Amino acid sequence: MVKSVYVASLASSMVVNLLFMIINIYVGGEWSLSWSSKAEAEAEAVSEIACSGHRRAYLDGLVGDGNEPVCECNTCYTGPNCSHFIPHCTADADSGDPLFLEPFWMQHSTSSALVVSGWHRMSYSFNDNTLISQHLESLIRKLHAFVGTAVTQDRYIVFGAGSTQVLRAAAYALSLANSSSSHSPTRVVASVPYYVLYKQQVEYFNSEKFKYEGDAHTWRNRSESDASTNVIEFVTSPNNPDGLLNKAVLHGPNAKTIYDRAYYWPHFTPIPAPADEDLMVFTLSKLTGHAGSRFGWAVVKDETVFNKMVLHMQVNSIGVSKDTQLRAFKLLKAILEEGTQIFDFAYQTMKSKWERLATTLSLSNRFSLQKINPQYCFFYNKVRESSPAYAWVKCEKEEDKGCYAVLKAATIIGRKGNVFGSEDNYVRLSLVRSQDDLDILIQRLQKLVSEEDGAISM
Amino acid sequence: MVKSVYVASLASSMVVNLLFMIINIYVGGEWSLSWSSKAEAEAEAVSEIACSGHRRAYLDGLVGDGNEPVCECNTCYTGPNCSHFIPHCTADADSGDPLFLEPFWMQHSTSSALVVSGWHRMSYSFNDNTLISQHLESLIRKLHAFVGTAVTQDRYIVFGAGSTQVLRAAAYALSLANSSSSHSPTRVVASVPYYVLYKQQVEYFNSEKFKYEGDAHTWRNRSESDASTNVIEFVTSPNNPDGLLNKAVLHGPNAKTIYDRAYYWPHFTPIPAPADEDLMVFTLSKLTGHAGSRFGWAVVKDETVFNKMVLHMQVNSIGVSKDTQLRAFKLLKAILEEGTQIFDFAYQTMKSKWERLATTLSLSNRFSLQKINPQYCFFYNKVRESSPAYAWVKCEKEEDKGCYAVLKAATIIGRKGNVFGSEDNYVRLSLVRSQDDLDILIQRLQKLVSEEDGAISM
Repeated sequence: MVKSVYVASLASSMVVNLLFMIINIYVGGEWSLSWSSKAEAEAEAVSEIACSGHRRAYLDGLVGDGNEPVCECNTCYTGPNCSHFIPHCTADADSGDPLFLEPFWMQHSTSSALVVSGWHRMSYSFNDNTLISQHLESLIRKLHAFVGTAVTQDRYIVFGAGSTQVLRAAAYALSLANSSSSHSPTRVVASVPYYVLYKQQVEYFNSEKFKYEGDAHTWRNRSESDASTNVIEFVTSPNNPDGLLNKAVLHGPNAKTIYDRAYYWPHFTPIPAPADEDLMVFTLSKLTGHAGSRFGWAVVKDETVFNKMVLHMQVNSIGVSKDTQLRAFKLLKAILEEGTQIFDFAYQTMKSKWERLATTLSLSNRFSLQKINPQYCFFYNKVRESSPAYAWVKCEKEEDKGCYAVLKAATIIGRKGNVFGSEDNYVRLSLVRSQDDLDILIQRLQKLVSEEDGAISM
Repeated sequence: MVKSVYVASLASSMVVNLLFMIINIYVGGEWSLSWSSKAEAEAEAVSEIACSGHRRAYLDGLVGDGNEPVCECNTCYTGPNCSHFIPHCTADADSGDPLFLEPFWMQHSTSSALVVSGWHRMSYSFNDNTLISQHLESLIRKLHAFVGTAVTQDRYIVFGAGSTQVLRAAAYALSLANSSSSHSPTRVVASVPYYVLYKQQVEYFNSEKFKYEGDAHTWRNRSESDASTNVIEFVTSPNNPDGLLNKAVLHGPNAKTIYDRAYYWPHFTPIPAPADEDLMVFTLSKLTGHAGSRFGWAVVKDETVFNKMVLHMQVNSIGVSKDTQLRAFKLLKAILEEGTQIFDFAYQTMKSKWERLATTLSLSNRFSLQKINPQYCFFYNKVRESSPAYAWVKCEKEEDKGCYAVLKAATIIGRKGNVFGSEDNYVRLSLVRSQDDLDILIQRLQKLVSEEDGAISM
């Protein structure tokens, strides 16, 4: 009874609102629809296409003369509604596409919806002549404080096109800071296994300023490292691929560190303390799942380094798209309005994925997984297990040292160990992709393990 | 009578539509608003803030606990509604912020409005595994064909974060293509006066692959240029700052050319023929006015060069934000749906600005303007005058050779000639900014000219 009164009262309030809308639209003796109504109708129509739960239709995925939206299916699904399963398809566990968060945003469609006018932020810069939205910056600080992931008080924040662009700007800024004391190139290192982008960027852009030297541990033991050579160490923490909370290996006056904190959210790791390093890099991609938006930021202690990074963004791309900054603003606002919801969803999802994988491989003598110890998490105020973004799988047997090929023969695509500077008896399997991808991966792994000689029986 | 019947019929059709909306919203015995309605209401509320016509409020420009949107005023205006004129303020004619197109999009608010769902394109890549929306690419080809600005048949198209990122990717791709034949750095040149970004990028990024050599004409006359040295020439056409339809100065097997076609739209120049160079760079900024969106593209003949540019975008930023690509998609769709409207608006606006400036300076013996000859324009099928983006002002008198300082003393900020590799008796004045900026610039110039000794009287 109480509920039906509530519904009736809600309904009547909505009738009033709707009448109010109608009255508003009847202006000056003529009917006129508001400027955003047509766009709203288009977006709602696209969102109603269900694609059988195996992905979505998109507003810019229209085809044909009638501009019909089409379903874009997850791997292993096909057909106009993504309803047809492809039986012997390959399980894709390669890229770190964070689609595990897509269902969260579908459930939170109202708080995350965005209406952009044609005249929104056409200028190169904001009104304070910077390329950085102060309102978005302020939301980022609030979010770090709420989750306890980073100290941002008395720190500078700079934006980039994903952590990809931010990481490079950071390396550049630190090497420029170095150059006054030395003419030799700055050496770039990272602990094995490392995220390959650090190496790719140094090698691809081929600047006089950098040389990639590989493993940080090896470099520490070299006599050269005692000299005046400047070194930049990339520390990924939690690490990609193995999820460990790495710390810097190199120290001293010539060593500078860039902390890649992409995965430092309760989704993937207990949060033992707010990170407080000199230069920390974060990304929207692994926080909200919006990899496609290309938005990252750095929290920087030193003003000179910050200024050099700002200059880098200016010369590289005149800053980050205002459309991207608006989207990030809306998404972070939605997160903050909804308390711990996204973290609860992401942690539960990743934990469940990890448990299914660990259970499957626990029956195997052939494959093993990384061990991550439980830690106290200040966000959840309890000791919690890890829920890593990736499985770092080791093929234990000598004859399986081409681990990637072993999995590929079982129609599983992972990422080769040598991409991370490791041996090829390792393969990374991505767990951040869609639920469909995980389901197929688990099926393939279960079959592979069940066929093992001497597999542990259930 | 006919009109009132039409209005009545339109009104009744809208009533039906509205009732249909209401019926749709009353689902399963309960009222529910659609997911985008709240965002729509927010955006409409912000758009209703008029700011006295001297700029706009923005959706991400909220302040205070109540998240009140605030007016962000044009230069020389202040106050909560931008209604207060600052009498002795400085006329800003410095940057190329293309705000002259803002009124166009305010008038075309329905066709350009965009509703983005929280789950829109979260993935790194599109369904074809590229970082480039094929639907947007197809719109770009249609637009070039409609306006006749570029040949795109059998050409590749690559996207970047503004022409800024695309220009650098182009230089990189061409230098990598060069490197097989030579170990010496590729020389980069441009005709004076040139757009300074080409020089800044080479010098800032400090790659082993490049060396900036300044003026293309000087380089042509050097003996070294006959040798096997590889050269990349940037040709800006129409040129920034002087609006001339430049052509390449260097030719031969070791010379490669990047055509910066940012201003090759009917807004700024007659279109004598579709451009058909090997590598042409365009930008949304000077086409629709959305500089803040950071979207540019290259039209490329050679597949190898295209592939290298794609790789560059991957390593630099994992491509262009999907939010930006969606915005560009919506804006280009709006342009194509509305025929010649944006070109008519932009041409008329720029022509009127140029005429006011030319009329003002025609009374002066102290300042002169560049001469641009009328040409046949295939878009308008007639000979038309130019309507350049910038005035390239020369201070004619020996005592005025610090032309920037002369204008600054009259509270006008332009851009110094030496920024463009020229002498400092030149200054660039930007005409693409807001109408407010132009009005104040003209006032200041009229005063300056009227105070001239021997000024031509009206």
